[in-house]
Amino acid sequence: MLTTLVIGQELVFTVGMTPRPRVDGFVGQEQVERVLAEFFVSSRERAATINPRYLNLWETLEKCTLGGKRFRPRMVLTPYIQLGGTDLDAAAHVGAAFELLHTALIVHDDVIDLDFVRRGQDNVSGVYRRKAEAAGVHLNTATHRGLSAGVIAGDLALSNAYRLLDGAETSRETNHALREILDEAVFASAAGEIIDLDFSLGDRPGAVDEILQMAALKTAAYSFECPLQAGATLAGATTDVVKALGNFGRDIGTAYQLVDDLLGVFGDESVTGKSVLGDLREGKGTILMAFARGCSAWGELSDLVGSPELTLDQAERARTILQECGAHAYAVRVANDFAERARAHLASESIPDQLRNSLEPMVAEAINRVR
Amino acid sequence: MLTTLVIGQELVFTVGMTPRPRVDGFVGQEQVERVLAEFFVSSRERAATINPRYLNLWETLEKCTLGGKRFRPRMVLTPYIQLGGTDLDAAAHVGAAFELLHTALIVHDDVIDLDFVRRGQDNVSGVYRRKAEAAGVHLNTATHRGLSAGVIAGDLALSNAYRLLDGAETSRETNHALREILDEAVFASAAGEIIDLDFSLGDRPGAVDEILQMAALKTAAYSFECPLQAGATLAGATTDVVKALGNFGRDIGTAYQLVDDLLGVFGDESVTGKSVLGDLREGKGTILMAFARGCSAWGELSDLVGSPELTLDQAERARTILQECGAHAYAVRVANDFAERARAHLASESIPDQLRNSLEPMVAEAINRVR
Repeated sequence: MLTTLVIGQELVFTVGMTPRPRVDGFVGQEQVERVLAEFFVSSRERAATINPRYLNLWETLEKCTLGGKRFRPRMVLTPYIQLGGTDLDAAAHVGAAFELLHTALIVHDDVIDLDFVRRGQDNVSGVYRRKAEAAGVHLNTATHRGLSAGVIAGDLALSNAYRLLDGAETSRETNHALREILDEAVFASAAGEIIDLDFSLGDRPGAVDEILQMAALKTAAYSFECPLQAGATLAGATTDVVKALGNFGRDIGTAYQLVDDLLGVFGDESVTGKSVLGDLREGKGTILMAFARGCSAWGELSDLVGSPELTLDQAERARTILQECGAHAYAVRVANDFAERARAHLASESIPDQLRNSLEPMVAEAINRVR
Repeated sequence: MLTTLVIGQELVFTVGMTPRPRVDGFVGQEQVERVLAEFFVSSRERAATINPRYLNLWETLEKCTLGGKRFRPRMVLTPYIQLGGTDLDAAAHVGAAFELLHTALIVHDDVIDLDFVRRGQDNVSGVYRRKAEAAGVHLNTATHRGLSAGVIAGDLALSNAYRLLDGAETSRETNHALREILDEAVFASAAGEIIDLDFSLGDRPGAVDEILQMAALKTAAYSFECPLQAGATLAGATTDVVKALGNFGRDIGTAYQLVDDLLGVFGDESVTGKSVLGDLREGKGTILMAFARGCSAWGELSDLVGSPELTLDQAERARTILQECGAHAYAVRVANDFAERARAHLASESIPDQLRNSLEPMVAEAINRVR
């Protein structure tokens, strides 16, 4: 039974630096690992018959999927089991599909963000850039090669998410419903990415409602809402249950992202493992910034954030402004509001007690990190 | 009935500059257009409920799919109809799935090649780069934004190829077999891309066998082999037929790519619509170059090709060398060999006469462009 969701550590993980030791698992995790391992073995075998260069790409992609907490598979397995599902192999395939979607999205997200490192290690693009550089290729060309390999590897992960989903032996109707959910996850994520791109690359920072929408699209949909719905659907749950879980997932996922943004500026580096300079230097569009834009100190703040050379003292000044202008308190309040909304969805009569009990801890954990 | 496959014009199209007027269609093309149109209408509607920025992305993606010859759908429909298939709507969904896969691959290929124009018009990345520049964004940032939008749009096309395939109402077994074929197309294309990347970005040019393998992976698999197999599978053909068609597709597709490479250097610009300087200036790894590497004039040739400033006179000199050293004759012979192998696969007893008769013209058309 799932007693600890360790969502806080998962957070560290997704934004994170160095890999953490795996925390206590969840029912079905072993099966998820096996499905993923078998998938990569067979893909490597297929690739090896084609060309060693292709095998290398698959090996690199596989490395990117190792060591994760399998948060999305957990979001599939939890409702599945609590709603009486017993086919762990089928659930593991669905969970693995969402894990591979996660891989696809972070690999392509890193391409978009020109990031070559994730969790303190070379990502796909980093591996290929480094290899090219070692072979004496000019840095620009090596960078381009790395990003290109990232595009290709992400495509493989994305298309194979659909393949893994098909590995779940279910009725045709259930299979169809699961594909709709996976499609929705991709559709929402792409929406979040393109909106984020417009904000992060220039024209204007997002307003509060836009930041909230982006959190729902980019984070909540594929990591919470859709996996929870998929697990319930596979278990044969009613539309009411699936809907309530989806609403819960969207709101808790949004709360989670807001807390993530708060920790990115106000967190304890030794706990989060994430520098508290990163988001400020990047000028990341968060709810904090969206609120602060309406404040009298915005002029001073906007000179500070977005500067790649922001010092520790300047960061401290930015934090002070964000607190004095009420942005911090506002963000905490909105995060709490979303957590409470999530809790209310869980209270739906359609949700069986044991499922509610196993999801309820997520609310406190998501929010207690800042409250 | 399909009487002319117009593969020559499709070639012009895929490598091409300006859109050509649509040539005579094929049975089922109308249905393919309708499936694609309906797909984009519903996607735009979904996107519009999320955010106008997201709607823009879908509109841009849709524009990239307009005006194509629907060559891959044609490769699905031809065997489907000649093998007695009558559900044009189902076949059109399968054809549309391959068309969308084609879109995904060219959108991501353009990202990899840093191309912002296709068929003389802005591609997805070009549209987003131009928009960013018009908004006053620095060129580097605008370029990055353009490429990022290309990554996201390609992901949408790729994942929705699977969605469209599901729109074909078939038995579960057929659905499963179709997905395997689509997966194989993606798997092979990615292999071709990564091998090509290794060649084009630096370390060493490909040898003849590697060039041939790449043509089979990058061109033949998703454009010929897999669509033909999918059409036959949907029509309920035997394994023998599906296999023979796959072999035919791989070989004719390889011949096609070799002819493409020949035309890229020796073609008549006024006919191909493609500059005969492009491939030489780019130093594109083709069978011509792979052969010429073993020749005594390679030193002089290698100084010419790959130079972005190559003049018309220098290009003429390169062509002379390629002819004198036997590279041209060799490439023509190998292309002919593949065409003959393709023809031999068509001669398989398992292939019904009418299907053979409708595919046979492809062989001559593919090869007559240079023979």
